Amino acid sequence: MDNSEIIKVEQQRIDGRAAHQLRPMRVTRNFIKHAQGSVLIEVGDTKVICTAMVEDKVPPFLKGQKKGWVTAEYEMLPASTNTRKSRDRNRGKIDGRTMEIQRLIGRSLRSVIDQTMLGERTIWIDCDVIQADGGTRTAAITGSFLALHDALSGLIEAGKIAEMPITNYVAATSVGIYQGEAIVDLCYEEDSNAEVDMNMVMTEAGEIIEIQGTGEERPFKKEELQKLLELGEASIKGIIAFQKDTLQD
Amino acid sequence: MDNSEIIKVEQQRIDGRAAHQLRPMRVTRNFIKHAQGSVLIEVGDTKVICTAMVEDKVPPFLKGQKKGWVTAEYEMLPASTNTRKSRDRNRGKIDGRTMEIQRLIGRSLRSVIDQTMLGERTIWIDCDVIQADGGTRTAAITGSFLALHDALSGLIEAGKIAEMPITNYVAATSVGIYQGEAIVDLCYEEDSNAEVDMNMVMTEAGEIIEIQGTGEERPFKKEELQKLLELGEASIKGIIAFQKDTLQD
Amino acid sequence: MDNSEIIKVEQQRIDGRAAHQLRPMRVTRNFIKHAQGSVLIEVGDTKVICTAMVEDKVPPFLKGQKKGWVTAEYEMLPASTNTRKSRDRNRGKIDGRTMEIQRLIGRSLRSVIDQTMLGERTIWIDCDVIQADGGTRTAAITGSFLALHDALSGLIEAGKIAEMPITNYVAATSVGIYQGEAIVDLCYEEDSNAEVDMNMVMTEAGEIIEIQGTGEERPFKKEELQKLLELGEASIKGIIAFQKDTLQD
Amino acid sequence: MDNSEIIKVEQQRIDGRAAHQLRPMRVTRNFIKHAQGSVLIEVGDTKVICTAMVEDKVPPFLKGQKKGWVTAEYEMLPASTNTRKSRDRNRGKIDGRTMEIQRLIGRSLRSVIDQTMLGERTIWIDCDVIQADGGTRTAAITGSFLALHDALSGLIEAGKIAEMPITNYVAATSVGIYQGEAIVDLCYEEDSNAEVDMNMVMTEAGEIIEIQGTGEERPFKKEELQKLLELGEASIKGIIAFQKDTLQD
Amino acid sequence: MDNSEIIKVEQQRIDGRAAHQLRPMRVTRNFIKHAQGSVLIEVGDTKVICTAMVEDKVPPFLKGQKKGWVTAEYEMLPASTNTRKSRDRNRGKIDGRTMEIQRLIGRSLRSVIDQTMLGERTIWIDCDVIQADGGTRTAAITGSFLALHDALSGLIEAGKIAEMPITNYVAATSVGIYQGEAIVDLCYEEDSNAEVDMNMVMTEAGEIIEIQGTGEERPFKKEELQKLLELGEASIKGIIAFQKDTLQD
Amino acid sequence: MDNSEIIKVEQQRIDGRAAHQLRPMRVTRNFIKHAQGSVLIEVGDTKVICTAMVEDKVPPFLKGQKKGWVTAEYEMLPASTNTRKSRDRNRGKIDGRTMEIQRLIGRSLRSVIDQTMLGERTIWIDCDVIQADGGTRTAAITGSFLALHDALSGLIEAGKIAEMPITNYVAATSVGIYQGEAIVDLCYEEDSNAEVDMNMVMTEAGEIIEIQGTGEERPFKKEELQKLLELGEASIKGIIAFQKDTLQD
Repeated sequence: MDNSEIIKVEQQRIDGRAAHQLRPMRVTRNFIKHAQGSVLIEVGDTKVICTAMVEDKVPPFLKGQKKGWVTAEYEMLPASTNTRKSRDRNRGKIDGRTMEIQRLIGRSLRSVIDQTMLGERTIWIDCDVIQADGGTRTAAITGSFLALHDALSGLIEAGKIAEMPITNYVAATSVGIYQGEAIVDLCYEEDSNAEVDMNMVMTEAGEIIEIQGTGEERPFKKEELQKLLELGEASIKGIIAFQKDTLQD
Repeated sequence: MDNSEIIKVEQQRIDGRAAHQLRPMRVTRNFIKHAQGSVLIEVGDTKVICTAMVEDKVPPFLKGQKKGWVTAEYEMLPASTNTRKSRDRNRGKIDGRTMEIQRLIGRSLRSVIDQTMLGERTIWIDCDVIQADGGTRTAAITGSFLALHDALSGLIEAGKIAEMPITNYVAATSVGIYQGEAIVDLCYEEDSNAEVDMNMVMTEAGEIIEIQGTGEERPFKKEELQKLLELGEASIKGIIAFQKDTLQD
Repeated sequence: MDNSEIIKVEQQRIDGRAAHQLRPMRVTRNFIKHAQGSVLIEVGDTKVICTAMVEDKVPPFLKGQKKGWVTAEYEMLPASTNTRKSRDRNRGKIDGRTMEIQRLIGRSLRSVIDQTMLGERTIWIDCDVIQADGGTRTAAITGSFLALHDALSGLIEAGKIAEMPITNYVAATSVGIYQGEAIVDLCYEEDSNAEVDMNMVMTEAGEIIEIQGTGEERPFKKEELQKLLELGEASIKGIIAFQKDTLQD
Repeated sequence: MDNSEIIKVEQQRIDGRAAHQLRPMRVTRNFIKHAQGSVLIEVGDTKVICTAMVEDKVPPFLKGQKKGWVTAEYEMLPASTNTRKSRDRNRGKIDGRTMEIQRLIGRSLRSVIDQTMLGERTIWIDCDVIQADGGTRTAAITGSFLALHDALSGLIEAGKIAEMPITNYVAATSVGIYQGEAIVDLCYEEDSNAEVDMNMVMTEAGEIIEIQGTGEERPFKKEELQKLLELGEASIKGIIAFQKDTLQD
Repeated sequence: MDNSEIIKVEQQRIDGRAAHQLRPMRVTRNFIKHAQGSVLIEVGDTKVICTAMVEDKVPPFLKGQKKGWVTAEYEMLPASTNTRKSRDRNRGKIDGRTMEIQRLIGRSLRSVIDQTMLGERTIWIDCDVIQADGGTRTAAITGSFLALHDALSGLIEAGKIAEMPITNYVAATSVGIYQGEAIVDLCYEEDSNAEVDMNMVMTEAGEIIEIQGTGEERPFKKEELQKLLELGEASIKGIIAFQKDTLQD
Repeated sequence: MDNSEIIKVEQQRIDGRAAHQLRPMRVTRNFIKHAQGSVLIEVGDTKVICTAMVEDKVPPFLKGQKKGWVTAEYEMLPASTNTRKSRDRNRGKIDGRTMEIQRLIGRSLRSVIDQTMLGERTIWIDCDVIQADGGTRTAAITGSFLALHDALSGLIEAGKIAEMPITNYVAATSVGIYQGEAIVDLCYEEDSNAEVDMNMVMTEAGEIIEIQGTGEERPFKKEELQKLLELGEASIKGIIAFQKDTLQD
């Protein structure tokens, strides 16, 4: 998972990586037996269980339209973070960050699905972070794409749908500016001190599905944005190559 | 509010505007007497009441740090949309879109505030949409910057703070690709049919505070992103000029 | 809005009014474009947006009875009061005062509607207080009657209902005893220090729809009640004349 | 409990009573051993457990003011009504009618308490309706006054307060217009078909604490209001005599 | 309610009872007029209102299966305990202990019901504790069995069901180890200091429906368990004899 | 994990086990890096992540008592069951079964902890079921004992507490009667069809901490209870031996 030929290394990072270097990524498929698709994705110390479960009905707003739906939920286990994270259910409401993330995951996956080919089905994506070290939302997107792919392959094998409704590969990563330098795939330590933080969701062809950049510490220049875009695109190409390898096993 | 010299008009839009043309913007200052700062901002048919209220304490996580805080809430009145929008309080939870938006407003304003100069105070920003026709979140940012500015001017006049803690002007607009063309400041009709939708929050110097782009109908190319960035930057320059005019009245 | 001929002035009030004198009242019709009826009503510094939206179905308990329903919701914007009012949605429950008020508005309007003539429709009344200075609930009733009237006129014009289902004009005001004297249309300052506080909802003919009186500081005598009733009746007559003028514009 | 000398009987009611006749009232004191004051009050088939519990602290808004507080909660048991009433806790919110009633009870009792003499204490009043047949809110007020009296007598006996902080007796009843006639103490059957419904809370001296009248079926005339006030006053006098008897046992 | 012949008395308890001696039990049938079955059960100072209401439909998961359902809710009135117990509805969630208890009551009653003979009906059991002195859950089971029996007898009399769907008598009591000795029917004082606490639900034939034992202060030996089982069985036999007497009245 | 010498095999079970035979058990220690203690416990196809996190404060009711607290939360991931389990947070309340289970885990662990030796600390136990195939609550107890042990060993190593506050080993298993035969460690299929279901929590010495038995399909005889107790005791001895092995690694 090294795209060192593409971008030049500038200085060593907290965990010894070069600016453009992704953390080691590992995927365990069929991690949960009850889900039609399920993976444990590990990106460095970030670990997320992504599952895809098929339900043979659609939400009310899609009823009778001969189309399917993909929706996602995201949650962090209490022990996934350094300080124990209280469960949302105890406060009786989902926190804002969680909301944002699960909406992002849902949109990202829907954008590469042909809803008509899916038939009147809902695919429930669940991303449960069991250990967090930065980049949980992008790991969740990359991993749940694989779970979704496995679940849909299962539907094809079972003769329930004719062809794969996935129109494109999709993966995500974070980029940011940390101590003045553009870096990729930020770990928690980097993420909490980054001047600029940007999440990118892209296709195999380098097209953009989602881009969300924030000047956490200061506004950032257009030139910085360009550098981040470049870095992110190169990295996501690498991740999609990895996804393809994984699915061929 | 016409920046027609900057970008060439290509075709007429639903409401007769050119691609690069913003809707008419109007601001009524001191709209609500109880708030230290308050404006009614109108962007075309979108109307948002933005207020800034000062509280002389900070949230627990900032206690004792001699810094202030700016936080935002956003809500749509039931009659603001075509089909009556049920109040969040009746469902007992805030909807995900609302969460995303109010977090965006808060982050945008905090990024141009020197929290130390603010002292141990919280500025509560409330953005209540009374009529929606696309672009409510960007109107809310543009308008609440003005309400915030007025509230802080009041603190200076009252001798409570020494200098203006605002470090930069900030405004926002939406850009998108609609029927293959890049356009700015989308009305509701355009927004719901756009292929690509992007919100930009920028400073006077053209630096980026937030950028959130989504391929609603399809992934989008880097070249499209570039065009959108250009269009957004030019437009936000115009909006900030308008903000300055308003504050000089 | 001066009914000085009817009741004798006794002493000057906080804002210079006579005991029997109403505050200036202003109504802006068609304030929100998405609602079938909508007004901004201003009673002194109290400002309420009242909207009426038509939905072509009825609540479950009325299904199949060939009758319609009118229901109301009331909310105060956070900046409407001197000290910021936290949103109900954040506490996950509607506060008791809000409940009382919205039930009062709903009952008052339903009492002048022929539900059968309405057909199987629900009229949703929303009263959002943007600035409060006493008398928000009575302003809401007076204003939402107008919004309701406009919405129903629209249904008639559209040929959806044959005749106006409104059987009576209805308006409301507050009366109270303040420093020993009976006064009408209390502003916030008066209201919070009144010994007795009473809200009256009446028809054009001076008949009572709702009457709610409370001895805030002390029990009150029957003679005081009589004086308040008289004062309220005269005032509501004036308000209904104003409503008629407004609707003739 | 017959005040037949005071008002002339006109026609027989559903349960055989005369228009001005109250239902039989029964009170069992010390009904619950853990509460400092507790009664079971029965008004015809309406049965309410009213308890008063003393807590040695006040709500935040009264802290340090050397004053006490009286607050009330009201709830109906599921089996108290003909059709099982779902518990508020299951819907996660208190229904509007319950809110209104418990606020009314609290205000009524506070109006006859000298908060300063109470010291920094809260008296929690709980009114749990175990069987409902109309008039539960007025029975709750009448009964919880007795529970409150017993709890305060206990504080005096224990030497915790010097004198009785109650400044006045208070009781309540309902009056209404049913089939064109003014009647008192409506049972459920009468209440649900009444044209006008009014709850009155009064002192021994016939002064008004709360009055809430609603034209359920039609607006009502001032003359009708006068008749209802008269009827209610006479009846409450009788109820207060009964309260005094009860407390002398 | 003395089964002194069965087990030998060893030492006197707080309230003067022998180890094996139950508290006095009293049942008032038809306590609430609106419920098809209703009792007030008193076990010493523990008092619970148990009602059974019949609804002519079943929960979704049983639809179309020609079977009925029995479900239970349990709640404590605020004044039922020494320190006022805040209502669940105010915290917006049911507390864990309440959940456990109402599930236990429901399971216990369902285990002696032939659901098919019940027809497509739900029996709602409500157990409202008005005064608590230990053993509220077991009193609730014993009492609600009687309310259920009365409600079902009513259905038979009304010709709605052919035969009694109850297959067995069921009653419950608590046993425990207190100061080293096995005792039955613990009052609150004993219960809060018991080393071991066990609730038993049994049939007339001495068969077990539910058994829940906890080593509150220390783990307990198998021999202790045996002693508790014996004690509980003998006591429940006595309670069931009492239930039969009650129903024959 | 075979205790075949202790109890005689009678017939083969669904998964080929003998009646007295436990499923294979596997434990991965230090599964989550942020928790002071954490294990993944697998019992057949049941997989639970158990973590123990230390917080240096106690709940309000223990403040100033120089004692610590152990509390547990339990949750099932949506994909842990055959049909996707909706998250508690979405319904805004914790389901009853979850409540029961987490209270059981907490009580079980507290019964083998010397709270005084723990100091003023709370140990938060989290049990998240990632895959369920029966026996999740007993696996959670067995596993979280290990996580708790590891967390406390860490406190000793860090010099924060002097000695191990654990007074006893504790483990749990389920026993039940299935097709007339007593079996141990029921898988989901067996559990859902068992006539009798019992969970046992015991110490190394065979003493009982919790016992919860339910006649799901029918009441059960005392002789059956005895057989189940015997079977459970022998099995828990085996599990505790396994726990000791694990901790010695």
